[in-house]
Amino acid sequence: MNPKSEDRPEGFSTAPGPRCVPFSMKGNEMENSDRTKPVTRGFSNAAREALYQTIFSRRDVRGQFTSKPIPEDVLSRVLMAAHYAPSVGFMQPWSFILVRAEETKRKVHELFEKAHGEAAEMFEGKSRAVYRNLKLEGILESPINICITCDRDRAGPVVIGRTHIKTMDVYSSVCAVQNLWLAARAEGLGLGWVSILDQHRLKQILAIPKRVIPVAYVCLGYVSHFFDKPELQSAGWRPRLPLDELVNFEAFNEDASDPFATRLLERIRKDQKKIEDGGQVGDFVATE
Amino acid sequence: MNPKSEDRPEGFSTAPGPRCVPFSMKGNEMENSDRTKPVTRGFSNAAREALYQTIFSRRDVRGQFTSKPIPEDVLSRVLMAAHYAPSVGFMQPWSFILVRAEETKRKVHELFEKAHGEAAEMFEGKSRAVYRNLKLEGILESPINICITCDRDRAGPVVIGRTHIKTMDVYSSVCAVQNLWLAARAEGLGLGWVSILDQHRLKQILAIPKRVIPVAYVCLGYVSHFFDKPELQSAGWRPRLPLDELVNFEAFNEDASDPFATRLLERIRKDQKKIEDGGQVGDFVATE
Repeated sequence: MNPKSEDRPEGFSTAPGPRCVPFSMKGNEMENSDRTKPVTRGFSNAAREALYQTIFSRRDVRGQFTSKPIPEDVLSRVLMAAHYAPSVGFMQPWSFILVRAEETKRKVHELFEKAHGEAAEMFEGKSRAVYRNLKLEGILESPINICITCDRDRAGPVVIGRTHIKTMDVYSSVCAVQNLWLAARAEGLGLGWVSILDQHRLKQILAIPKRVIPVAYVCLGYVSHFFDKPELQSAGWRPRLPLDELVNFEAFNEDASDPFATRLLERIRKDQKKIEDGGQVGDFVATE
Repeated sequence: MNPKSEDRPEGFSTAPGPRCVPFSMKGNEMENSDRTKPVTRGFSNAAREALYQTIFSRRDVRGQFTSKPIPEDVLSRVLMAAHYAPSVGFMQPWSFILVRAEETKRKVHELFEKAHGEAAEMFEGKSRAVYRNLKLEGILESPINICITCDRDRAGPVVIGRTHIKTMDVYSSVCAVQNLWLAARAEGLGLGWVSILDQHRLKQILAIPKRVIPVAYVCLGYVSHFFDKPELQSAGWRPRLPLDELVNFEAFNEDASDPFATRLLERIRKDQKKIEDGGQVGDFVATE
């Protein structure tokens, strides 16, 4: 075998300007002809770029669903992404309840309407008017709704890693939701997480047993478009926070002024500016 | 403007065999020259492939850390990925406490050792012996530990989407952890989530105030290698569950036998077999 550079896998040019990555990613470090050989390195710039653009352009979709059906191969892939999420003690506590029937959707939509009305009353003055005007779910318009659950008894009473933090299993199911969300975005599917509803009644509608938690109820479907920025950000509800102010050192809210910390915070400010200035759909990794 | 095909963005050939994606992803639907134009479609096969390979090859890393320092640009990117996670009501409740000092790490490691001893006692017979032999953290070996928190007061008492499910803010921080984890994998960084410790004592060590929850404590660093499969799977602790058995229809544990459901479940079995047979680092999207 030819020696490879530490940082540049075979098949990638170091020349500036447009470069090509073979479509099948053969020759990429993600592909090993010898399956027993461990994968040791990071991905190519193009592959990292794809991941970051998925992350930065992912949106909580409420109002742009189309009725275009989701083919089974696409649905299989996004569910597979969810199933390969991390789980405490390899518990895989999730199930995925696919809701397609109009009748079930209507029942869940009624739950939302009730909770939404109650929620509006909790906001004061101008916020209440803004809140009422927000479109917050696409239960009826999206072709498929999915309830992602957590079965707390999936692996018996004692689970590696759940012995001291009891909610780790629920966190695992949340990781599955996030994987599903990112895969959906890459497939051109919008996903919206509906959290404004009564969980106890949702469990009744979906016949979810006592030991199982309905962690997320999401709407999934093709969309007319994805917004450039989160709707609550565009609506001026809350700004995107500066990440450099959320990075602490050694203890909560503690700063650091050593050279590495200074360089890191400077870099974070620069990176965030690039994304907010329009880089949510542009280059992030590849350019300075 | 030239009309584009619905499914094939400009710059992508429909011919079989190796194809090229321009490195900067210009001409891809992820890049829009007109920033006001919404992004409407899914990503190219290569970009989706990159996301799926990140997801399938992500590992909980405990024992393969090297001392190679993490450059600030890489650390900035993985933190940025976390910061662009979804959050309820755009709350962005997270902070990231970077732990670099040997002294802090030692204190946290002591917490782990204590909890780990307690946990071992909870397992019976053979399981206890297996449990004791598992390497479950890399606190001291990894160059940086990060505590990802959730500040429940980040956006005032009433938060959109948190009115009926109080834990939504914690779930947001978990989504940030998962984004960080995937970005780390793509950068060639291993990440291990340490959940075997006393959260109250962890809060004391990191001076975390009462209102803030330490959602995750993770170890981050370059690794000698990534395992092909999860360690608990390889060790025979638990198998990877068949996803088709976790997909329900309309209600918990309910099957369906309509043509779409049948095709979906068949596809899921096929896709999972492909991944388990070695596709964790190979083609998933591009090939049949």
